[in-house]
Amino acid sequence: MCPRIVEIRQKVLKKNDELARRMRGRFVAERRFTINLVSSPGSGKTALLERTLAELQQAGHAVAALVGDLETDHDARRLARSGAPVKQINTHGCCHLEAEMVRRHLEDWDLPGCRFLFIENVGNLVCTASYDLGESLRVVLLCVTEGEDKPLKYPGLFNSADVAVITKIDLAAACEFDRDVAYANVHTVRPGMRIFETSSTSGQGIADWVRWLCERRQTWVDQADR
Amino acid sequence: MCPRIVEIRQKVLKKNDELARRMRGRFVAERRFTINLVSSPGSGKTALLERTLAELQQAGHAVAALVGDLETDHDARRLARSGAPVKQINTHGCCHLEAEMVRRHLEDWDLPGCRFLFIENVGNLVCTASYDLGESLRVVLLCVTEGEDKPLKYPGLFNSADVAVITKIDLAAACEFDRDVAYANVHTVRPGMRIFETSSTSGQGIADWVRWLCERRQTWVDQADR
Repeated sequence: MCPRIVEIRQKVLKKNDELARRMRGRFVAERRFTINLVSSPGSGKTALLERTLAELQQAGHAVAALVGDLETDHDARRLARSGAPVKQINTHGCCHLEAEMVRRHLEDWDLPGCRFLFIENVGNLVCTASYDLGESLRVVLLCVTEGEDKPLKYPGLFNSADVAVITKIDLAAACEFDRDVAYANVHTVRPGMRIFETSSTSGQGIADWVRWLCERRQTWVDQADR
Repeated sequence: MCPRIVEIRQKVLKKNDELARRMRGRFVAERRFTINLVSSPGSGKTALLERTLAELQQAGHAVAALVGDLETDHDARRLARSGAPVKQINTHGCCHLEAEMVRRHLEDWDLPGCRFLFIENVGNLVCTASYDLGESLRVVLLCVTEGEDKPLKYPGLFNSADVAVITKIDLAAACEFDRDVAYANVHTVRPGMRIFETSSTSGQGIADWVRWLCERRQTWVDQADR
């Protein structure tokens, strides 16, 4: 890559990091657990989020979601059916979300009592890794149809994540998904990372995933309260 | 995006375009039909290429492949099993291939009589659209598991392609793939674009695809010979 682009990109990243840090402080002050979902295009971020928003609301939690895409508001409309407040961020050519985009869309958005704020990033396994959004938790999705080698091919993103969710597990047999190899590859890049297996179609694994999210938020709140 | 990045990026793109133009001239002079495959990570570029290299070699064509990935040489090793000459390009953090990377890897690579040169791009639906590699044909893959809306969400890439290949068609029923919607979305972005439906597992559609590639190369050669 051209050295001048690298230099300017580092400045942009530095500015992004500073804003993300301020936003992280704000999320803590509001006790709003913020989750950044990253993955390839089409690996099931929106479907997982539909299930997750529904489950959390059923359990009495106030939730909200920001959804990033280059174009269209398809995903925001899909997610809004859950009854949760949802906003679409259209990046118009930018392959990832940046902290400033999140900040701008949160401005003047009243979310009283919101405990979980989900940010669905643009489908991209590279540049999304570099942009901190101030999130409390970064979730990387790995779809069984994508192949088990993605963690090795995109180590930066898998290494930057806190937890991995394997999606479309109902298709595992049909595409001869090798669970052991996938786990080994995730753990090569990020030893010990927690991995969930889910299907947004059948619902498999969703309850465990949502329970873990709630526990994880509680631990985070307890730390902030101290 | 930061205006200075946009400005420098335009300069980089301009330089890339100039090199790509020179390479395109060279590919024509060598009668080497060059195919740039673009798609999401995990939508089956390598699997389609394995099938395609095997079929073309069986039909007596000399072929070669360049394979782009951030890290690992998994794909090059997979493709080399076909007996075709293969080279891996590791981009180490860069989310797309650039003409200069292709030029560098072709330097001193003797490919006598090579008629088809395949370039498997990095899995990315955004930045790969902007970098011309001097190819004769750009192929965009759309995997049935990814959802039918990808052309609308990533119009830049679908619009820059010459042909679309729907992959993993054997999983269409399992993931309730809506063929009509997918076709309509492709044609909204790129009216009339030719679409193939393939499965690299069952072999469905591969013969049609390879036959079309050979015809397309012949038309291209005829134009060059005039």
